[in-house]
Amino acid sequence: MTISIDQKNDLEMVITSENPPTFNLATYLKTQQAAVEAALEGAIAVVYPEKIYEAMRYSLLAGGKRLRPILCLATCELMGGSSIMAMPTACSLEMIHTMSLIHDDLPAMDNDDYRRGKLTNHKVYGEDIAILAGDGLLAYAFEFIAAQTQGVAADKVLKVIAHLGRAVGAAGLVGGQVVDLESEGNPDVTLETLTYIHRHKTGALLESSVVCGAILAGASDTDLARLSRYSQNIGLAFQIIDDVLDITATQEELGKTAGKDLQAQKATYPSFWGIEESKRQADQLITEAKAELAPFGAAADPLIALADYITARKN
Amino acid sequence: MTISIDQKNDLEMVITSENPPTFNLATYLKTQQAAVEAALEGAIAVVYPEKIYEAMRYSLLAGGKRLRPILCLATCELMGGSSIMAMPTACSLEMIHTMSLIHDDLPAMDNDDYRRGKLTNHKVYGEDIAILAGDGLLAYAFEFIAAQTQGVAADKVLKVIAHLGRAVGAAGLVGGQVVDLESEGNPDVTLETLTYIHRHKTGALLESSVVCGAILAGASDTDLARLSRYSQNIGLAFQIIDDVLDITATQEELGKTAGKDLQAQKATYPSFWGIEESKRQADQLITEAKAELAPFGAAADPLIALADYITARKN
Repeated sequence: MTISIDQKNDLEMVITSENPPTFNLATYLKTQQAAVEAALEGAIAVVYPEKIYEAMRYSLLAGGKRLRPILCLATCELMGGSSIMAMPTACSLEMIHTMSLIHDDLPAMDNDDYRRGKLTNHKVYGEDIAILAGDGLLAYAFEFIAAQTQGVAADKVLKVIAHLGRAVGAAGLVGGQVVDLESEGNPDVTLETLTYIHRHKTGALLESSVVCGAILAGASDTDLARLSRYSQNIGLAFQIIDDVLDITATQEELGKTAGKDLQAQKATYPSFWGIEESKRQADQLITEAKAELAPFGAAADPLIALADYITARKN
Repeated sequence: MTISIDQKNDLEMVITSENPPTFNLATYLKTQQAAVEAALEGAIAVVYPEKIYEAMRYSLLAGGKRLRPILCLATCELMGGSSIMAMPTACSLEMIHTMSLIHDDLPAMDNDDYRRGKLTNHKVYGEDIAILAGDGLLAYAFEFIAAQTQGVAADKVLKVIAHLGRAVGAAGLVGGQVVDLESEGNPDVTLETLTYIHRHKTGALLESSVVCGAILAGASDTDLARLSRYSQNIGLAFQIIDDVLDITATQEELGKTAGKDLQAQKATYPSFWGIEESKRQADQLITEAKAELAPFGAAADPLIALADYITARKN
């Protein structure tokens, strides 16, 4: 659940170096992903009744970019905190993200058979266990932050829990998913509705990843507002690129069924703007996101590189 | 979310009177239920996207005994706290309980059409919305405690969140539900397994209701242990009586399909012990539960009456 001293030193070297020759995102991601994987691996032990813990671990440890935990760690460190302070929250963000994927994939929802190149949770464990594995991950996420966070004042941890709860619930992710389901097969979905969906379904948790990292480090309200705008922009850009990739990438690249949006007659950004304009809009959002980080100087290099990474990614 | 001054005075009169003529449980329940209903009613407003808030409210405000919130309020007051301190946690306990009912009723789980005399959530809103309504209630429960609790030190609120998270997750309610599902139609289920199911599926949240109320009031570890044993005993008694009522009560009395356990060939306490011995075991557990409260004197009258109420209830 904590990263090793060696990993931590590597990390600090990368981040705090006053004038880094060039910020190496690949190395940074590799280091941070390894730290997150180790923490997630240690977060859930398999005990009786084994099946539920195995189902939770199956989806939680199925790879993935770990973008939310890494954003949380990076922001906490940018604001003067340590990765140790943020690691329980970082893990919880991934638990919540995983819960949303497990439930989204259910037959009653998106009915997906593959996720991250593997069979979806309910295809392996059955629908009943998949529902419960999601519930278990969601409950554990809040328990984990409350019980495991160290070196942070209790009132700040409560603020994180409240922010995260809101990001997941009907005012966030769940609400976005509801509007998404309602809009399916509706040819009259507006750009406004599409943006509502994504600002909530994907955006809210990404924003919470960044803002919670900053809360843990004791960031000022001004900095929290700045980082909130940064994360809202990259969240929306992330989704625009996701829509583009659904059209342009292969199933092998995505690790999930490609072309599903077209097949489901879902409104997407490319369906409003076409592919090129969608990419341009995503680039514009990323430029604005990075502009918010200007006051932080070189210390914001990881968050700047992460913003660029979102538009450059292939899956 | 707060109870009115009048209700509060009534309550204090009932509870703190040094030598109450007789503790009137019916009046107490009526007062507390009204306070909880008002707080739950105010906890969730209907905003866009309306459907999810309506679905959450549909099941949350469908009546029910409000046993968990009332146990939480009563214990907080017994330990010297106020109902205002405990009301957000009390509401969250009901949100979590409601989430578990919505998900349990799904076709992939127990496949129930009626609950508390009304159509189940998925029969009204569809399976997809029912899954999301449960997720929304679970996330909101934690947000609500973190954001709304007043007059309690932040570290105690964190302790409540950690306790409650554990009570809901794989180590509690979810784990109990998994073993319950695995045991269905299995003629070799042992009494030990049956007790595991109920100590987790029903017992963990009831225990958390009592213990969290006491944590909020700043109870000592000795008192927490005592109240934990009290609540574990009433939790198990509650389930034994539930099994008995499934056989002896009518659908009208229960507000849900009667005789389901027999039909599903589920192991129940009456299937091991018969109805009379099951009732005797429940009585014994209640006697032991009440013995734990002896050191608290007359102040524990509400918890003593609630313990008796559990074995005497008809639905």
